[in-house]
Amino acid sequence: MLKIIYWKKGKLVFIDQSILPNKLCYIHCGDIYTLYRAIKALKIRGAPLLGVAGAYGVVLGLKNSKAKNYSELARQINKIIKYLGSSRPTAVNLFWALERMAKCAKENSKFPPRTIFELLLNEAHEIMEEDIRSCRKIGENTQAVLKNNDAVLTHCNAGALATSLYGTALSGVYVAKETGKKIKVYADETRPILQGSRLTAWELQQNGIDVTLICDNMAASLMKKGMIDKVIVGADRIAANGDTANKIGTYNVAVLAKYHKIPFYIAAPGSSFDLSIKTGRQILIEQRPREEIISGFGKLTAPKNVKVYNPAFDVTPYELIAAFITERGILRPPYKKTLRILK
Amino acid sequence: MLKIIYWKKGKLVFIDQSILPNKLCYIHCGDIYTLYRAIKALKIRGAPLLGVAGAYGVVLGLKNSKAKNYSELARQINKIIKYLGSSRPTAVNLFWALERMAKCAKENSKFPPRTIFELLLNEAHEIMEEDIRSCRKIGENTQAVLKNNDAVLTHCNAGALATSLYGTALSGVYVAKETGKKIKVYADETRPILQGSRLTAWELQQNGIDVTLICDNMAASLMKKGMIDKVIVGADRIAANGDTANKIGTYNVAVLAKYHKIPFYIAAPGSSFDLSIKTGRQILIEQRPREEIISGFGKLTAPKNVKVYNPAFDVTPYELIAAFITERGILRPPYKKTLRILK
Repeated sequence: MLKIIYWKKGKLVFIDQSILPNKLCYIHCGDIYTLYRAIKALKIRGAPLLGVAGAYGVVLGLKNSKAKNYSELARQINKIIKYLGSSRPTAVNLFWALERMAKCAKENSKFPPRTIFELLLNEAHEIMEEDIRSCRKIGENTQAVLKNNDAVLTHCNAGALATSLYGTALSGVYVAKETGKKIKVYADETRPILQGSRLTAWELQQNGIDVTLICDNMAASLMKKGMIDKVIVGADRIAANGDTANKIGTYNVAVLAKYHKIPFYIAAPGSSFDLSIKTGRQILIEQRPREEIISGFGKLTAPKNVKVYNPAFDVTPYELIAAFITERGILRPPYKKTLRILK
Repeated sequence: MLKIIYWKKGKLVFIDQSILPNKLCYIHCGDIYTLYRAIKALKIRGAPLLGVAGAYGVVLGLKNSKAKNYSELARQINKIIKYLGSSRPTAVNLFWALERMAKCAKENSKFPPRTIFELLLNEAHEIMEEDIRSCRKIGENTQAVLKNNDAVLTHCNAGALATSLYGTALSGVYVAKETGKKIKVYADETRPILQGSRLTAWELQQNGIDVTLICDNMAASLMKKGMIDKVIVGADRIAANGDTANKIGTYNVAVLAKYHKIPFYIAAPGSSFDLSIKTGRQILIEQRPREEIISGFGKLTAPKNVKVYNPAFDVTPYELIAAFITERGILRPPYKKTLRILK
């Protein structure tokens, strides 16, 4: 499969997802300011991938550190974490990875800064490898709910491009192909940023999967015609009761799936679960720039001064979710109980 | 209000809706080939407006007629009707108007072709004036379901731009403003052609209505937050049982409204009802070009060769519709009975 992210000669290299599918370009990122801007501008996105990027970000931020001891280094790490964390306030994986890096440094505080730096680089590598392993496992666990000839609807991009490899929602499709199952995927284009048409359709094509692109508002129509067997999407943040924040439009699809009696699955690694928050009500939803809606394609498609409402995410309540597919297995209701194994 | 369509010196003049909201240009159309292409390319669209355009189209087609008697003229009229009718196979108002023109000619077959031509021009004027009167009446009838400070969600454009004046779904908002009610409108952008952002948001702004633009996939999110009190949309074709074909995405919104217990209304003139078809299953849904989805904004936003599914319409089953708001009053279930007054 195509390389999504890797570390090379002191730089973090990743695909610039903002110019897909027209051009495949890798950004060679050597500092945290470039990384911050890349996250902010969605050049790099996807919950698990942001975790990996954040981990390497800490390493990038310390590259030229002149810290003489752990306490100086820790101050620098805190500053880096605060800065990178502010790039995407809803990305729980990012915070999770940043905190894990801080913890790694703290646990090795007895070593000189140079050694801690090397250990942090190893920790970032480990976070990436864990991501690959857990995505693969999610794909394998998805096989329990995927039958030969199933048609799967997905929203946004929770594919390989959202992770270090395989993806979450799409990992099951890739693994299914390996095992000889024929799966058809319908991809919601996912306005306003079009992750579905730019990323999901592209990566599925690259990997030889039968994919058909639709506009977000066509999903109900396909469901009614019996063209969709399962819905599988990713997650940005999952609360202890199962309420799930994901790309705007996910809740739309969940309601439609419920109405048409189609199972709606969330595929996500343990790191997307934030059991410290009880319900989705506690999840902060950022508003994104109006330009994404009125001129998202470099062309004004609405009155210039029109009011817009542009939330980045929505929250799908747990009762619309048939199951969570994680690297630890498939978790079904009642989520207040079953999600506890992720603690 | 802004002029949408009028007849001037042997030409049909109408707004080129395909370049809104950036430019306001009128097309001065002197022949049926230009009209056919304008309909096909959605330069002129909206069910009632297509009826008016079709009526004038018959006049345009006969402008240079050398017919010596009624039977020669009738042959020409049939040819024109067949040609114009093929521009939008789902547009019932178009067929309705074309047939009414044929009937008008037939009823006056005793007159010389020149006189029949004048009578046909009068008939087209009458069809336009009836459209304006019926839209106005729909707006007045809508007041029974609109309260002060209501927030209305609409999909696609069933506004003034879809008719000769006032619109259908939006007429109620315009009349409400005259009566001093404060109504807030949320407009779905309506992919792939963006009638909501290009047309609905634009015309509401032009007429001083408080409008906020959203992407189609945000509707559920707003409904859940209690931000939507009513949904009002137009219709392309309504079957005898109440099943309604309208712009793709309408069925999506109807399902979401049902789930959130928000009343979903169809505002449409009698001419949109086709009581000769029993249910929505009999309505032919055209597939539109793939370019609308993959490069709808003059820029490739998906893999060039990706498969797409792009139906122009969907069918909302009658059980999701709280009422039909027509010029004859508000029609509520059971529709098999109440729709009969439109016969």
